[in-house]
Amino acid sequence: MENNLFHLQYAMDTFYFLVCGALVMWMAAGFAMLEAGLVRAKNTTEILTKNVALYAISCVMYMICGYAIMYGGDIFLSGIAGGDTLVDDTLKSFAEREDGFEGGSVYSSASDFFFQVVFVATAMSIVSGAVAERMKLWAFLMFAVVMTGFIYPMEGSWTWGGNAVFGMYTLGDLGFSDFAGSGIVHMAGAAAALAGVILLGARKGKYGPNGQVNAFPGANLPLATLGTFILWMGWFGFNGGSVLKLGDIANANAVAMVFLNTNAAAAGGGIAALITARLLFGKADLTMLLNGALAGLVAITAEPSTPSALQATIFGAIGGVLVVFSIITLDKLKIDDPVGAISVHGVCGLLGLLLVPLTNDNSSFSGQLIGAATIFVWVFVCSLIVWGILKAVIGIRVSEEEEYEGTDLSECGMEAYPEFQRD
Amino acid sequence: MENNLFHLQYAMDTFYFLVCGALVMWMAAGFAMLEAGLVRAKNTTEILTKNVALYAISCVMYMICGYAIMYGGDIFLSGIAGGDTLVDDTLKSFAEREDGFEGGSVYSSASDFFFQVVFVATAMSIVSGAVAERMKLWAFLMFAVVMTGFIYPMEGSWTWGGNAVFGMYTLGDLGFSDFAGSGIVHMAGAAAALAGVILLGARKGKYGPNGQVNAFPGANLPLATLGTFILWMGWFGFNGGSVLKLGDIANANAVAMVFLNTNAAAAGGGIAALITARLLFGKADLTMLLNGALAGLVAITAEPSTPSALQATIFGAIGGVLVVFSIITLDKLKIDDPVGAISVHGVCGLLGLLLVPLTNDNSSFSGQLIGAATIFVWVFVCSLIVWGILKAVIGIRVSEEEEYEGTDLSECGMEAYPEFQRD
Amino acid sequence: MENNLFHLQYAMDTFYFLVCGALVMWMAAGFAMLEAGLVRAKNTTEILTKNVALYAISCVMYMICGYAIMYGGDIFLSGIAGGDTLVDDTLKSFAEREDGFEGGSVYSSASDFFFQVVFVATAMSIVSGAVAERMKLWAFLMFAVVMTGFIYPMEGSWTWGGNAVFGMYTLGDLGFSDFAGSGIVHMAGAAAALAGVILLGARKGKYGPNGQVNAFPGANLPLATLGTFILWMGWFGFNGGSVLKLGDIANANAVAMVFLNTNAAAAGGGIAALITARLLFGKADLTMLLNGALAGLVAITAEPSTPSALQATIFGAIGGVLVVFSIITLDKLKIDDPVGAISVHGVCGLLGLLLVPLTNDNSSFSGQLIGAATIFVWVFVCSLIVWGILKAVIGIRVSEEEEYEGTDLSECGMEAYPEFQRD
Repeated sequence: MENNLFHLQYAMDTFYFLVCGALVMWMAAGFAMLEAGLVRAKNTTEILTKNVALYAISCVMYMICGYAIMYGGDIFLSGIAGGDTLVDDTLKSFAEREDGFEGGSVYSSASDFFFQVVFVATAMSIVSGAVAERMKLWAFLMFAVVMTGFIYPMEGSWTWGGNAVFGMYTLGDLGFSDFAGSGIVHMAGAAAALAGVILLGARKGKYGPNGQVNAFPGANLPLATLGTFILWMGWFGFNGGSVLKLGDIANANAVAMVFLNTNAAAAGGGIAALITARLLFGKADLTMLLNGALAGLVAITAEPSTPSALQATIFGAIGGVLVVFSIITLDKLKIDDPVGAISVHGVCGLLGLLLVPLTNDNSSFSGQLIGAATIFVWVFVCSLIVWGILKAVIGIRVSEEEEYEGTDLSECGMEAYPEFQRD
Repeated sequence: MENNLFHLQYAMDTFYFLVCGALVMWMAAGFAMLEAGLVRAKNTTEILTKNVALYAISCVMYMICGYAIMYGGDIFLSGIAGGDTLVDDTLKSFAEREDGFEGGSVYSSASDFFFQVVFVATAMSIVSGAVAERMKLWAFLMFAVVMTGFIYPMEGSWTWGGNAVFGMYTLGDLGFSDFAGSGIVHMAGAAAALAGVILLGARKGKYGPNGQVNAFPGANLPLATLGTFILWMGWFGFNGGSVLKLGDIANANAVAMVFLNTNAAAAGGGIAALITARLLFGKADLTMLLNGALAGLVAITAEPSTPSALQATIFGAIGGVLVVFSIITLDKLKIDDPVGAISVHGVCGLLGLLLVPLTNDNSSFSGQLIGAATIFVWVFVCSLIVWGILKAVIGIRVSEEEEYEGTDLSECGMEAYPEFQRD
Repeated sequence: MENNLFHLQYAMDTFYFLVCGALVMWMAAGFAMLEAGLVRAKNTTEILTKNVALYAISCVMYMICGYAIMYGGDIFLSGIAGGDTLVDDTLKSFAEREDGFEGGSVYSSASDFFFQVVFVATAMSIVSGAVAERMKLWAFLMFAVVMTGFIYPMEGSWTWGGNAVFGMYTLGDLGFSDFAGSGIVHMAGAAAALAGVILLGARKGKYGPNGQVNAFPGANLPLATLGTFILWMGWFGFNGGSVLKLGDIANANAVAMVFLNTNAAAAGGGIAALITARLLFGKADLTMLLNGALAGLVAITAEPSTPSALQATIFGAIGGVLVVFSIITLDKLKIDDPVGAISVHGVCGLLGLLLVPLTNDNSSFSGQLIGAATIFVWVFVCSLIVWGILKAVIGIRVSEEEEYEGTDLSECGMEAYPEFQRD
């Protein structure tokens, strides 16, 4: 009888993980649509190809070795199987828990991999937007192999995996806390992107000789809006699933609060960015509204379970204001990020980490700063090395003529909108 | 042991609410895509901006005061928190229920807010389509603040909240029943839209001097179709979640029947509208097919749990026929609704209310009529006042030149499709 | 107390079915976007109309008689109702099971219909892509009536329904196994499509006089990519729901493994097709990448629960290579399939069936071949007859002029992108 309760709790926690994982997988579509909407028409097929391919590569590389590096276990997931496996062992492990029914999460290891693998893809999706419109497709995919098979899993092993950083210090012990990955996923992706953008340089014509910044408007704003809504929805899985357990009252309350706060932060971020852009530019800037909502989401991701709904809204709003100024500042520094990914995921990812100690007593500012520095330095330096090698060996930037004609024709051999005349 | 069962039921009911809420949130994307597909290219950025912003405003206003007005409780949701809170109290309330395990729903209050807040956004989304292509963006957003923070919560408090209307009569006692909101959400949104459309007037050139109605075809029908599919999917959460409980056999059966009937009504509505339009216009009119499916969904929303699958299909089909004639009639009355929102949500929302007594013995036609009148008069009159004040103070309509050039440039400063040449 | 456990398991299994069903319904949007993205602009409204209408028709026909033919039971689902019905009977059937709590699935019959009906729509969606750009809309919809009300339910009754084929042989006894429908759904759809394509003939200008194949590029690749992501996501429900039960440890493990393997196969298929196309054509071909991911999904669908993650990735990759060569070969045979549906769903559906015996000892190659032949012959011959009758009576192909002008204007009276100039 007690066993049957454990069966149900196990099934419930597994299903919750799978539903949340499917929502995070859906974020891959969100990034694809967001980025395809914000680049120019001539670079659309290529960014779509990158987004689909990077998701596929993430899944394969994380299966081959990434998950094993991050959490231990066997390469090729050779220890994970479905069906009847381990039912008795699972029941035994339930029975032996001192904390009983309300103890830690017990669920299918396949569901755990499924939930984790879509996070890797999220980190990698962040990169594609920032290097859009001038990076070689195959160089990007080679970087994706290393990022998702090694760079991300290593920093993941030091944070969610609980390993000491190079055997020297353990982030958890220092007061580092990153609930769903403001730093571990989003800032990590942004750090890899920043390294790429620095080595790549800006798009031709983006920055004029006298310091002027030329706007390259996105070709398809409904797509960008759709992408944002997809990300917003998927984020319920991203943050909600990071509670890791659903099946008792306290955990169900936590999951519900995370859904509520994730939504509130996005709302706060969107409104704040819309108003900020209105004050700065005099118009209701849709792209800033979208980036503001995403900034709010990133900012709450490090701790969506402890703030009140009002705090979550305010934290999101801080992210929404910050992202507008960050995008402006990066352009002044001539760091050319066509979709604002470094500002949304990097700057607001750091913000998210620094907001945690305000509501979570188990974290400290020093711990958050050390954690942020560890993640950033590791990912940025590794990425610089990998991008640098790729640049030296095969080149990472398309030719000037290819950039002018658009990467769709040179890299993919097909236009995204072959029948629509362009101005 | 019994306690552990309650833990599981609580977790299951909470998760069901959250999944349904996420599906309803997704409807915001559906409205955005539907409306962006049905307006002309020059007004696309602006309608997207409105849709994202109104969703964000709905979330903030309902958190600040809307939920408190509708269901009681504290402003800023200050009584709602996640984690360990109230586990003992929850278990105690389970134990004290006379009806035992199969009693009323007990779930996280955060999940309840999450499920409710996305309904407010739905009501507000209906408005944006009807006033598209000529309303000032900031006036619209100010209206959204009042609608989501006060007008909707008040009528919600008289219906789902159970309060007496101005202390005079209680709708539930009169035999009013609106399962998931044909009237409370959809017709309410349409009433607010109608007030706005009347004060705004028709788009320039829509109605010719000799009574002719000029078609302004939507710029992007794949988007409109996507939006319809999103709404169709999200409606499973909208109606399915309105059972309010999943965790026993009777309620699970009810939820399943609601999913089945929601789907059947949409199918019936789509087919009926397609055939009706074929008979009237001689063509397979995609926009009527889409509006027919939505009409079927609205029509079943007031009672999706008691009809048989065949009845649900027929009810949907009635909605599908009605919406075609309603759209034609509104154009004859020179009520200019670019996306057909008043017909879909208002006329078919009323239809839905009137269909309830056919299958649900706990409702009466008189109760449904009184309820419909209460909702309509309240929302329409309040909206007329608010739109009227906005018109007097800041104006609600863009200038003729701005309308001609498109609201994208005047309101948002950016085109939705900047590279695609227009005819 | 035991009864309450059954309540919870029943509710959980029902909810799991409903969530999976909603994901499969979502695949209808995926097919619509994929096909709308891959046809030319002038045929977009028509393909959208077909996709929405075929989904609606599938729902109605399967309710009227399809479900009854396939699984027994009453026409019009007259035996299915929601609410309190049958709670005591359900509890009794739980109690009488010899296998106790971990026995077969018990869930709401309404949820079962909902899960099954969306499968019919999937089979029918496959057809619309292959016959795109030249088939008459109403002839197609009439075919949909027969396909979803009779042809598919008959072969479904011989496979998942467990009936003997014309009373002669029972596929299950011969070692036929098709977990989620590589053959029963996907190859069946492709067989109906192939019959239609043969009777229709190729699009004008597709094949030149000297054997050259002219490319007709898809008009909107972001839509096609979105469609693929939607299908990828929806496939978690398609395969994951086909375990038919979630609520104990072994079944939860199986569902999790199915999610994991479904994702892995899609990833493997995408990468393999991308590399294959690169080697053959020298470019990163987005449409082949998309078809490769879908091919991987189809290939794993016949058995996603027994392979390891590595095997699933390899099986998907085989599908990804195969689909590229199949698309090339069909063009050489002048079988004109604008979206590659016959290759993806037919050829890789057969592949999926043949891969089953490699990991599932309960199936045999001979059983798979007999099953594949049964399904193919039945669906292909019936379809040929129905298409043939339609061709003789009302015609199935639009006129040459209508094809040149585009089916959007002739069939639907409206363009999909009326404002965007075409080259």
